[in-house]
Amino acid sequence: MGSLPLDASLRPLDPEAFSGESRAVVDFLAEYYRGVDKYPVRAADLEPGLLRKLLPGAAPEHGEPLEDVLEDVRRDILPGLTHWQSPNFFAYFPMNASAAGFAGEMLSVGLNVVPFVWAASPAAAELEAVVVDWMGKLLGLPQRLLFSGGGGGVLQGSTCEAVVCTLAAARDRAMAKLGHEAITKLVVYASDQTHATFQKGARLVGIPAVQLPRHPDVGVLRVRTDRRRRSRRRLIVTSPAALCPCTSVPRWAQRGFGAARPRCAAEEARRHGMWLHRGHLPEFQGYLDGAELADSVSMNPHKWFLTNTDCCCLWVASPRALTSALSTDPEYLKNVGTNGTGKPAAIDYKDWQISMSRRFRAIKLWVVLRRYGADGLRAHVRRHVAAAKWFEQTVAADERFEVVVPRRFSLVCFRLRPRSVGDEAAVNNVNRKLLAALNESGRAFMTHFVVDGKFMIRLAVGGSMTDMQHVMDVWELLQDQADHVLRRF
Amino acid sequence: MGSLPLDASLRPLDPEAFSGESRAVVDFLAEYYRGVDKYPVRAADLEPGLLRKLLPGAAPEHGEPLEDVLEDVRRDILPGLTHWQSPNFFAYFPMNASAAGFAGEMLSVGLNVVPFVWAASPAAAELEAVVVDWMGKLLGLPQRLLFSGGGGGVLQGSTCEAVVCTLAAARDRAMAKLGHEAITKLVVYASDQTHATFQKGARLVGIPAVQLPRHPDVGVLRVRTDRRRRSRRRLIVTSPAALCPCTSVPRWAQRGFGAARPRCAAEEARRHGMWLHRGHLPEFQGYLDGAELADSVSMNPHKWFLTNTDCCCLWVASPRALTSALSTDPEYLKNVGTNGTGKPAAIDYKDWQISMSRRFRAIKLWVVLRRYGADGLRAHVRRHVAAAKWFEQTVAADERFEVVVPRRFSLVCFRLRPRSVGDEAAVNNVNRKLLAALNESGRAFMTHFVVDGKFMIRLAVGGSMTDMQHVMDVWELLQDQADHVLRRF
Repeated sequence: MGSLPLDASLRPLDPEAFSGESRAVVDFLAEYYRGVDKYPVRAADLEPGLLRKLLPGAAPEHGEPLEDVLEDVRRDILPGLTHWQSPNFFAYFPMNASAAGFAGEMLSVGLNVVPFVWAASPAAAELEAVVVDWMGKLLGLPQRLLFSGGGGGVLQGSTCEAVVCTLAAARDRAMAKLGHEAITKLVVYASDQTHATFQKGARLVGIPAVQLPRHPDVGVLRVRTDRRRRSRRRLIVTSPAALCPCTSVPRWAQRGFGAARPRCAAEEARRHGMWLHRGHLPEFQGYLDGAELADSVSMNPHKWFLTNTDCCCLWVASPRALTSALSTDPEYLKNVGTNGTGKPAAIDYKDWQISMSRRFRAIKLWVVLRRYGADGLRAHVRRHVAAAKWFEQTVAADERFEVVVPRRFSLVCFRLRPRSVGDEAAVNNVNRKLLAALNESGRAFMTHFVVDGKFMIRLAVGGSMTDMQHVMDVWELLQDQADHVLRRF
Repeated sequence: MGSLPLDASLRPLDPEAFSGESRAVVDFLAEYYRGVDKYPVRAADLEPGLLRKLLPGAAPEHGEPLEDVLEDVRRDILPGLTHWQSPNFFAYFPMNASAAGFAGEMLSVGLNVVPFVWAASPAAAELEAVVVDWMGKLLGLPQRLLFSGGGGGVLQGSTCEAVVCTLAAARDRAMAKLGHEAITKLVVYASDQTHATFQKGARLVGIPAVQLPRHPDVGVLRVRTDRRRRSRRRLIVTSPAALCPCTSVPRWAQRGFGAARPRCAAEEARRHGMWLHRGHLPEFQGYLDGAELADSVSMNPHKWFLTNTDCCCLWVASPRALTSALSTDPEYLKNVGTNGTGKPAAIDYKDWQISMSRRFRAIKLWVVLRRYGADGLRAHVRRHVAAAKWFEQTVAADERFEVVVPRRFSLVCFRLRPRSVGDEAAVNNVNRKLLAALNESGRAFMTHFVVDGKFMIRLAVGGSMTDMQHVMDVWELLQDQADHVLRRF
């Protein structure tokens, strides 16, 4: 292994060399998983630019053995990573790795087919259509969003891609009525707490000002009714697509602390002829309320559903609305199976996404669904929700702390609120110190959020290796750090 | 292996189960590579919807063993794939898999970190900055496009993503001067033969009409000089980023048949204050002519550079122009290391791309560059160019055939041109029949291109397993099929 001759006879897919080297990487990763909880969760103080000093200034002229490369990963790279697969990672959002997700991705990467048009790998496109329907059924989506009900779905790389595609479709639907000049009069209507993706997506598709009204009264729909504006602008209602399912009205869509209340917004959006996009959380049927009115729904199996990065499901009620914004038909791609020229039911997935080329993501999600089954995925999600519920109750029972926003799923937003500390600025300062101390310990990693000037700490439970014991341990750690911070205060 | 208990004690990253299952997939793929040339290269006649009939209508309730899943891949999926890694795949464009690309991707997928902001995995962001500079040096890019020279690079998933990002940056640069209302007056200037990506990208970023003038005179720059239009519109020059390096002027950028002549266009673009994007081919320094004038350059290691899908390098002369179009700064992402709030040299790569989340692609490209070295990659590319050159000469020497466009790299555009067949329509018909017969044989897969009404067959040499013998074999096959087609004509 590792000493493949690197000359004109280079055989980059020699099966024997492939097997030996791939097994070495499997062993490397298994060893990593065995010891991942020994690393500081967040990378210790790495200086920006440090790796540049450690590594040569240019690629090597001659090839090197894989052993050397793996040794360098161990020595130079691993200590500088933040370990998202650590059971003590509670930051940002979970990104689940799993044996099945890895196996599925290996199949995708190894086969390395590019199902951009149907003929370019028919079974890959077919499997994608099957598996997005499977996933939609598992979530209890309305039939109209599934292929079997006249809609359909696609696997993309991220929520952002899905948002850009749906905003482009929504924009083009509006411009088809209002003319292209209307592009300067469109607006994406979303909460100030809504996923930053929507602000970015709106700018990318050329919609100028994202209106983010700040209304403190949660639950009141604020569609602009000012007559002059309404006549100038067509509203597009959007919502974040992430772990928290929500719509876009001010403060209902609160990615920061996981609130959700979608129905009124959905009905209002319909009444105004807006495009409604919904984010979605698996298994929580109550939060699907209003989904039967949505034009599109997206959900990331790569977050909490044991599907290694990346995999984002996007479903649309009208595939034509999506593909009319995204299709391309250059001559050199015309082949049997292409929509319109060949068999009519063949799907050219390049017309359902930003890129022309694409990976065979369907096989990954399919392996995950086969391998763990619906009940395995439910059990996975439930144990995190149970652990978060325990944490919320425990925090609430400790008079030094408070839960700032009621938990809905597995995200708990809390803060230290000692009676001895008076004003909000001082409370924020204590919590900043607490979070810094916690993260510097290396024994856990959490991130924060600020709403209405309140600095709160987020505990996002969802790691593939995270179970109740890790959450109990982090509570111990938090108490110790809180004692320490308060003593110095 | 395969019988992991699927209950509340689900351990999706159990190292033993992970090892066993991953090794089974490695064995599966090694077996696939051993026999990949036995499959029909293009999927045999699969009916759209066939797989849906073969597979259950919903995900299983209970998990299933991996062996069963792999057996289903073998039986239901493989026969329906078009085998991009077959040595007899000459269609579309090459998408190289390799042992090193696979190993690198396994590391990325197994570590499953998400380096969207610097603090979220510092070493991953650092490695990306290092490896894009390595790659840029390997290509001989001007210093101004490298981090070491004040520019910088990012790894994205595809040319299309890179194009959307650069068009958004170019658009925002123009609108910063002209106001947002100018969005309806901008135009992307590109050849009618240019990569379809630019048409799609322009629509995505809200630029209405992509001007694609058809000029038959190759080599003459046609910037709109019509005074009324010039005063209304700001031109953005773009070019395809793919295997053929070219600029965007009519017919110089001819993805279909690989022509290239960039310098005059680059100078003209500069003179008019346009944004110039260049696609790039490794190792052909002559075709870098004009790159020192470019605002951005992109190139896909995932095509010809032994890096499994996906990996697209994008370099920009002004990172600020890119990030000012793409940055987001919501509160919950603010952490040490974030630009502007922490260490100044830290890179938040979410601001260099469409998506917020991202994969650790840098480790894949780094493993490829380490493992094969600069000379290994050169040897890989050269053997394909040599084979294509042999094919071109052989075709040219056969009086029944003609080479339609002079070959530059490893793409040969040719057609059957028998003296006995008179008009162009009949010649096209003969060539359509020839290509259909060839592809139906299952022994090779090519695609076609049409320019000025001429139907030509494309032989794109570039597969990881493709060597001279395969090209010689396909020439034999072509001659046999040509005899057959001409006899029936």
